[in-house]
Amino acid sequence: MGIVLNGGTVVTAADVYQADVRIEGERIAALGREIKQPGDQVIKVDGCLIFPGGIDPHTHFDLPAGDITTSDDFYSGTKAALLGGTTTILDYATQFKGESLQTGLENWHKKADGKCFVDYGFHMAITDWNDTIAQEMTTMVHQEGVPSFKLYMAYKNVLQVDDGSLLQALRQAGKCGALVCVHCENGDVVYDLVQKACQEGKTAPRNHPLTRPPEVEAEATSRVITLAQLADAPLYIVHLTCSGALEAVTKAKLQGREVYAETCPQYLLLDDSYYSSEGFNGAKYVISPPLRPAQNQAALWSALQTGILETVATDHCAFNYKGQKELGLEDFSKIPNGAPGVETRMGLLYTYGVQSGKLNLNEFVVLTSTNAAKLFGLFPRKGTIAPGSDADLVVWDPSISSEISVERLHQDVDYTPFEGFKQQGKAIRIFLRGRQVCRDGQLTQELPAGKYLFRNPFLRRKDGKNV
Amino acid sequence: MGIVLNGGTVVTAADVYQADVRIEGERIAALGREIKQPGDQVIKVDGCLIFPGGIDPHTHFDLPAGDITTSDDFYSGTKAALLGGTTTILDYATQFKGESLQTGLENWHKKADGKCFVDYGFHMAITDWNDTIAQEMTTMVHQEGVPSFKLYMAYKNVLQVDDGSLLQALRQAGKCGALVCVHCENGDVVYDLVQKACQEGKTAPRNHPLTRPPEVEAEATSRVITLAQLADAPLYIVHLTCSGALEAVTKAKLQGREVYAETCPQYLLLDDSYYSSEGFNGAKYVISPPLRPAQNQAALWSALQTGILETVATDHCAFNYKGQKELGLEDFSKIPNGAPGVETRMGLLYTYGVQSGKLNLNEFVVLTSTNAAKLFGLFPRKGTIAPGSDADLVVWDPSISSEISVERLHQDVDYTPFEGFKQQGKAIRIFLRGRQVCRDGQLTQELPAGKYLFRNPFLRRKDGKNV
Amino acid sequence: MGIVLNGGTVVTAADVYQADVRIEGERIAALGREIKQPGDQVIKVDGCLIFPGGIDPHTHFDLPAGDITTSDDFYSGTKAALLGGTTTILDYATQFKGESLQTGLENWHKKADGKCFVDYGFHMAITDWNDTIAQEMTTMVHQEGVPSFKLYMAYKNVLQVDDGSLLQALRQAGKCGALVCVHCENGDVVYDLVQKACQEGKTAPRNHPLTRPPEVEAEATSRVITLAQLADAPLYIVHLTCSGALEAVTKAKLQGREVYAETCPQYLLLDDSYYSSEGFNGAKYVISPPLRPAQNQAALWSALQTGILETVATDHCAFNYKGQKELGLEDFSKIPNGAPGVETRMGLLYTYGVQSGKLNLNEFVVLTSTNAAKLFGLFPRKGTIAPGSDADLVVWDPSISSEISVERLHQDVDYTPFEGFKQQGKAIRIFLRGRQVCRDGQLTQELPAGKYLFRNPFLRRKDGKNV
Amino acid sequence: MGIVLNGGTVVTAADVYQADVRIEGERIAALGREIKQPGDQVIKVDGCLIFPGGIDPHTHFDLPAGDITTSDDFYSGTKAALLGGTTTILDYATQFKGESLQTGLENWHKKADGKCFVDYGFHMAITDWNDTIAQEMTTMVHQEGVPSFKLYMAYKNVLQVDDGSLLQALRQAGKCGALVCVHCENGDVVYDLVQKACQEGKTAPRNHPLTRPPEVEAEATSRVITLAQLADAPLYIVHLTCSGALEAVTKAKLQGREVYAETCPQYLLLDDSYYSSEGFNGAKYVISPPLRPAQNQAALWSALQTGILETVATDHCAFNYKGQKELGLEDFSKIPNGAPGVETRMGLLYTYGVQSGKLNLNEFVVLTSTNAAKLFGLFPRKGTIAPGSDADLVVWDPSISSEISVERLHQDVDYTPFEGFKQQGKAIRIFLRGRQVCRDGQLTQELPAGKYLFRNPFLRRKDGKNV
Ligand SMILES: [Zn+2]
Ligand SMILES: [Zn+2]
Ligand SMILES: [Zn+2]
Ligand SMILES: [Zn+2]
Ligand SMILES: [Zn+2]
Ligand SMILES: [Zn+2]
Ligand SMILES: [Zn+2]
Ligand SMILES: [Zn+2]
Repeated sequence: MGIVLNGGTVVTAADVYQADVRIEGERIAALGREIKQPGDQVIKVDGCLIFPGGIDPHTHFDLPAGDITTSDDFYSGTKAALLGGTTTILDYATQFKGESLQTGLENWHKKADGKCFVDYGFHMAITDWNDTIAQEMTTMVHQEGVPSFKLYMAYKNVLQVDDGSLLQALRQAGKCGALVCVHCENGDVVYDLVQKACQEGKTAPRNHPLTRPPEVEAEATSRVITLAQLADAPLYIVHLTCSGALEAVTKAKLQGREVYAETCPQYLLLDDSYYSSEGFNGAKYVISPPLRPAQNQAALWSALQTGILETVATDHCAFNYKGQKELGLEDFSKIPNGAPGVETRMGLLYTYGVQSGKLNLNEFVVLTSTNAAKLFGLFPRKGTIAPGSDADLVVWDPSISSEISVERLHQDVDYTPFEGFKQQGKAIRIFLRGRQVCRDGQLTQELPAGKYLFRNPFLRRKDGKNV
Repeated sequence: MGIVLNGGTVVTAADVYQADVRIEGERIAALGREIKQPGDQVIKVDGCLIFPGGIDPHTHFDLPAGDITTSDDFYSGTKAALLGGTTTILDYATQFKGESLQTGLENWHKKADGKCFVDYGFHMAITDWNDTIAQEMTTMVHQEGVPSFKLYMAYKNVLQVDDGSLLQALRQAGKCGALVCVHCENGDVVYDLVQKACQEGKTAPRNHPLTRPPEVEAEATSRVITLAQLADAPLYIVHLTCSGALEAVTKAKLQGREVYAETCPQYLLLDDSYYSSEGFNGAKYVISPPLRPAQNQAALWSALQTGILETVATDHCAFNYKGQKELGLEDFSKIPNGAPGVETRMGLLYTYGVQSGKLNLNEFVVLTSTNAAKLFGLFPRKGTIAPGSDADLVVWDPSISSEISVERLHQDVDYTPFEGFKQQGKAIRIFLRGRQVCRDGQLTQELPAGKYLFRNPFLRRKDGKNV
Repeated sequence: MGIVLNGGTVVTAADVYQADVRIEGERIAALGREIKQPGDQVIKVDGCLIFPGGIDPHTHFDLPAGDITTSDDFYSGTKAALLGGTTTILDYATQFKGESLQTGLENWHKKADGKCFVDYGFHMAITDWNDTIAQEMTTMVHQEGVPSFKLYMAYKNVLQVDDGSLLQALRQAGKCGALVCVHCENGDVVYDLVQKACQEGKTAPRNHPLTRPPEVEAEATSRVITLAQLADAPLYIVHLTCSGALEAVTKAKLQGREVYAETCPQYLLLDDSYYSSEGFNGAKYVISPPLRPAQNQAALWSALQTGILETVATDHCAFNYKGQKELGLEDFSKIPNGAPGVETRMGLLYTYGVQSGKLNLNEFVVLTSTNAAKLFGLFPRKGTIAPGSDADLVVWDPSISSEISVERLHQDVDYTPFEGFKQQGKAIRIFLRGRQVCRDGQLTQELPAGKYLFRNPFLRRKDGKNV
Repeated sequence: MGIVLNGGTVVTAADVYQADVRIEGERIAALGREIKQPGDQVIKVDGCLIFPGGIDPHTHFDLPAGDITTSDDFYSGTKAALLGGTTTILDYATQFKGESLQTGLENWHKKADGKCFVDYGFHMAITDWNDTIAQEMTTMVHQEGVPSFKLYMAYKNVLQVDDGSLLQALRQAGKCGALVCVHCENGDVVYDLVQKACQEGKTAPRNHPLTRPPEVEAEATSRVITLAQLADAPLYIVHLTCSGALEAVTKAKLQGREVYAETCPQYLLLDDSYYSSEGFNGAKYVISPPLRPAQNQAALWSALQTGILETVATDHCAFNYKGQKELGLEDFSKIPNGAPGVETRMGLLYTYGVQSGKLNLNEFVVLTSTNAAKLFGLFPRKGTIAPGSDADLVVWDPSISSEISVERLHQDVDYTPFEGFKQQGKAIRIFLRGRQVCRDGQLTQELPAGKYLFRNPFLRRKDGKNV
């Protein structure tokens, strides 16, 4: 007894074709025609595209930030993700200073356990590096299914690590099958520029981008690429925003280095003029790295087209404008950094990417799903529509038009940076491991059905990586 | 009544998965499990990879060159192609000076008709440009299924066109849905260097590469990219060989230009030291552009990995060493230019690409099949394994080892440039549009079954190209 | 009996110092203090800068263009040059099709003989290349004092040579001590774009820059640099205008190539918005290459600062607006190409370079005088203030302000492209080979005193060039 | 009563001409002919070149390093400098942790006072940055004649400063007319690589370059250029050694940044193969940055030719092989870093630069003298041969050949890295501020006559820098 989706157009990273999709249990059983088995339920999806469920490889749910916590926890956050067409998220579990990785991971398991509407995995953010942690890294990869780690070159005195630690972490990762994700901004410089701005009485949100200029990101990106080379390790740059950083990544790729990079819809669609929004509204866009001058957007789109950038993630890190962002009313440096996006990613990329002619359908799937699965040890279980893969499917009706508004979103936060943006197309049915969990924008399953994903180690090209 | 391939691993441009493949008539009907229908024949292919049939987008069969003709015609050439795992070739039909394109095309139809063991299409090489030919270009695209054309920047006084003609041809192509393929070498400079060498009594084959140095290719590549930009036209660079030309292509891609490029196994695996082979043996490697200093090979492999190069073609253009190459015994400039390769392409790229860890299986399929289909108006009919696509399938047993030798090849030419190279893996079954045409290295169909392919126009990214 | 300039500040390519300058006969005898000899005339130049006389290495006086001739001949042109602070010009003598170089040179000698107010030399423009001309090139260098030649990559069917000829001319120059100057625009492309514009009824001056876009110059510049490399010859790019061409020159220099380049005040100070001037006034700016979008100006200034560009010449080629430019009233392609500038060069570069803080005084001298002397075989006779050098001196009073207007200029043409531009500083005394020929903007010698300069061959770096 | 040098050829940054040079008191009074005054002493220097005295802007005399001190103090070091043709040195006075700059400077004044055979100035090396030091920086510039400072990105836990301090120091320098000199190596990475090597038992000198690879220098160079841009400050990179760092400097210059760089003879003439010298001899070449693979040398020479590098200094920092270098016999990381060179710089650059055809005479003067004077506030007092400038003159006889050997050198150290190198030409007379202090390789003045040089602030281009 399976399910047959009939009449749709299957889209993968490489293909676009009309075919039935047959689901049996949690997996895709067959693709093609005349594949229906006796007893199968047939669901008509004429005129619809069938995408692999979206994978958002960069979220922060239930994350403490000083005295407050992100407004979205795993319950609200993954519900929003699902309704937006994303069936897998990878969240950044964090080791705080003095903790073991194990402790950090357990803390995040507790936050997520039983609350997730989508399948989920954890990257492990390391803020305290030493030889013990180095050994734990191997354990994480092989016994906990966590083959990716994050280090920060910014947030001095809080999350930032020095170049020596970063080099060692990369070296260890290169040895034990892990991929290191790096937040690239020169934290020393940011710290100095913020202090200088404060001393000069510059307290409004518009000072946020001025204290984190693109050069600071380009420099750090270039530096960590050098470290990865010296460590003989692969590297993943999170939330790349500017042409300077793109140049560094491009140069590395052309030299055959295993350097990968991610951007986010906010960097593709918004620019630094938002920081001059009326009153304190600029605070809504206080994220790090900040929004950039508009000319960077064309460079980012070009990089998506040429494959210089691998993924479009969200860096979803939601804080309410009221009560949370407002903590920085008198001092921009006290505004909690982050913005929501997990629910709007797929729609925005379809609308402003595919509809506008910037991306083709294959590229859309590559960027929203396939590459994240391949880089983070989930392929071919996730990230494609193929026999044997999890039946995480998004049935997308390209004919539905709508407009993004905070009132219609399910993220637990009082604004969206994309208020008023158009959305063309909509996920009218979503399947998670074979079960239809969403229909016409409504959950069809009350209870969270997401499972923890034990992920595979990262395979180097030289290890004969096959996928 | 169909055929089910059971037990193999399907490889496409994006996926690698174990599944049955069901063929019905000429096409792939379904993929997955439990897809067998009553009456289907089941063929066990355990342990084998199943690739989309190879597409070689650059061959010259039955091509006149001065007083002689290539040793391979469409009969021997396509037979060799098929036995090597290639099920589609695109040959360069040529308009000679004074001819209409229609005449040129008809001549090539006559050469190929009824003689091809694989499906085939024609690019049209234009050597004589004027307003009438411009109009014919549109006719070719829409009424003859020929949406790709070639122009030569080299071969002064024979095939070479000037920049004005090239610009006009590109502009016309941009308008009528065609893709222009260009042979990039500065013919004026080559002509001068050849004359100078001859005057200085330098007559041995080793002078061939010295009269066509890499700078001559890099310059022409860069120039035609400028022309394509001014003409607002897409561009395909044939047989790119050197890092200077790669730089030009890379720069263009990073600027968002629709510039595509091809290389060939000979440039990936051989170098210019072959021109110093004993006696006159260097003549076997007299091709244009020539083999390059070895350091270019790493740059080419890197470009395959990063997607700067789209395709690996052969530029198969076979002349016998005895009697044909020997025409240049006294004067290297009289050696007919070209070498065979249509039969060895798939095996070499699998062995020296996939086996060596330089390429993954998806990249192998992309480079040998999918991209050629996408660029030349054959996708998704050709170039993938998906429901509805032609059942052109190569069942590849990766466990078989062999060595390349002219004695075991089917190309009608008395040498191979790859003599003694290893081959890992072998096509043990080949299907052409659903029919098994090859088994264990032998044809199973005596008669040529290849059909002419009426191809679709080239879709620009801005036209909302979806594949 | 000499002359002592007392109280001024001597400026050379390297130095700025206060000292007396003693002239004896035609040459500088001494610099310093207490150098006055009995009988010397002392001229007080307190508060003034003393520059080496300007050298304009790119003029076209008395040049036929179709049925007309430039409005400035050697008499008016060199008078204007002198009054602007230029004491040496190098004019482009032209070999027309079918002529020998000797004939071309003699024709130009006739034009200039007895009419020049400044010292002068000739480059030889070659429009018809063959083996005889190649031999003549050597004669020119060693017996006529003409060690520089020009070839055109543009002006199809008129002046343009093909790449083979260009390569051969470069090779011959490299052998015989000559420097080849090249006009870099792809003439085939320009020809096509002009024809296309005309067919489309685009006849106004604003179409001029659209038919000669920067890409056309960048491409040709890059190409000729490749040719010079293959020919093992030094190269001088005339009138470089855009950042694309600068990139090519920069790349070549960084690779150690002997590539030099010139720009002109019009490219530093004017932009392509002038082509939209009221009525037909855009015709005044119809020059080739055309004025460029304004962002190129910053790149050119930067290149002057870093030494990527060697010289600032004028490409003075004057046609009256009335009666001459007007020939293109109905068709922009019939507007004679060229504009005046020989009189305004020094003042503009001082004002918009030195005064604005973009150039220091040494750089001013380097760009207006020293480098031209070094590249074109005149150093140390010209181009510096040193014992033994010709006493070509400009006494510049930096305190005088004025405004440029056609009414106050001495060029024989009815407009200046720099109408209304400011000028800070003025040549209040000018000495040509020891004789004061100008005082407060007036000639002090009625008769032309300029001499023909027999120049030295170009010395390659590898020849142990010492200056 | 002056001195007239008669019969020589004067060489400056721009000129080469035959003339008498008249010295009066400490300064050059006149250049030219017939400049002799009654009572003048005439010295014949026929056949000789007259250079401005060399300026070595990077020495370490009497420098403590752990428990030992450099073998050369100011007495022996400046004597050797003088005999080698250098009449001015700039030494790095060092502020050690906890000291004020004033204390550091006074310490160095004590070391140098009365001991110097050449004129001398101090850069101030800052190892401990805070707001008090920032204020002292201004005092140093304007009241102590010290307008240049050095910071180290390497030597973790000893000299290294973090990016925040570096940024602040640059910002302060930009404001108060100072130029910051930076040692560019990523100290965190070096520290890690050294520790790793030691843990792995890699103790021989050949591990020195492996723990400080070129990437570590290129990264730091690129980083500090970014910092200087953000600080709006000029920057001087000391001892640049590799093509990666050159790329960063080149890119900055092309963007119009005031970034300057220095290299040293050891990087131009020696390569990393020296670390494999027999026994422990590799220790002689243990300097930081280390000697590089030979291909970097061509890039450095090219950069000297194109002006990407401004100066050739020595980084003279001498330790005896016996007793000092030997401290690292068991552990390469304990070898004191540094090597001698102050005496051999001029001869090596003349021989391997000018003689070999790589540099012309003007470039030789620019690199050994003029640019250092201009960048470090000594021009036109030093760095040229012009009326009014100090009569620091080197009379160079280009006909004398010799070979470099430690036995014939005056540096107080038991080896030279250039043992056996040829020297063409020799300083046969040297004048320091008008006094002949050296004749035929012998001091003609027993007592040190060098004076402290109170230097001028650095002038930015935008400040209307005139020289
Ligand atoms: Zn981050
Ligand atoms: Zn994040
Ligand atoms: Zn070809
Ligand atoms: Zn071909
Ligand atoms: Zn011109
Ligand atoms: Zn001209
Ligand atoms: Zn140092
Ligand atoms: Zn040092």
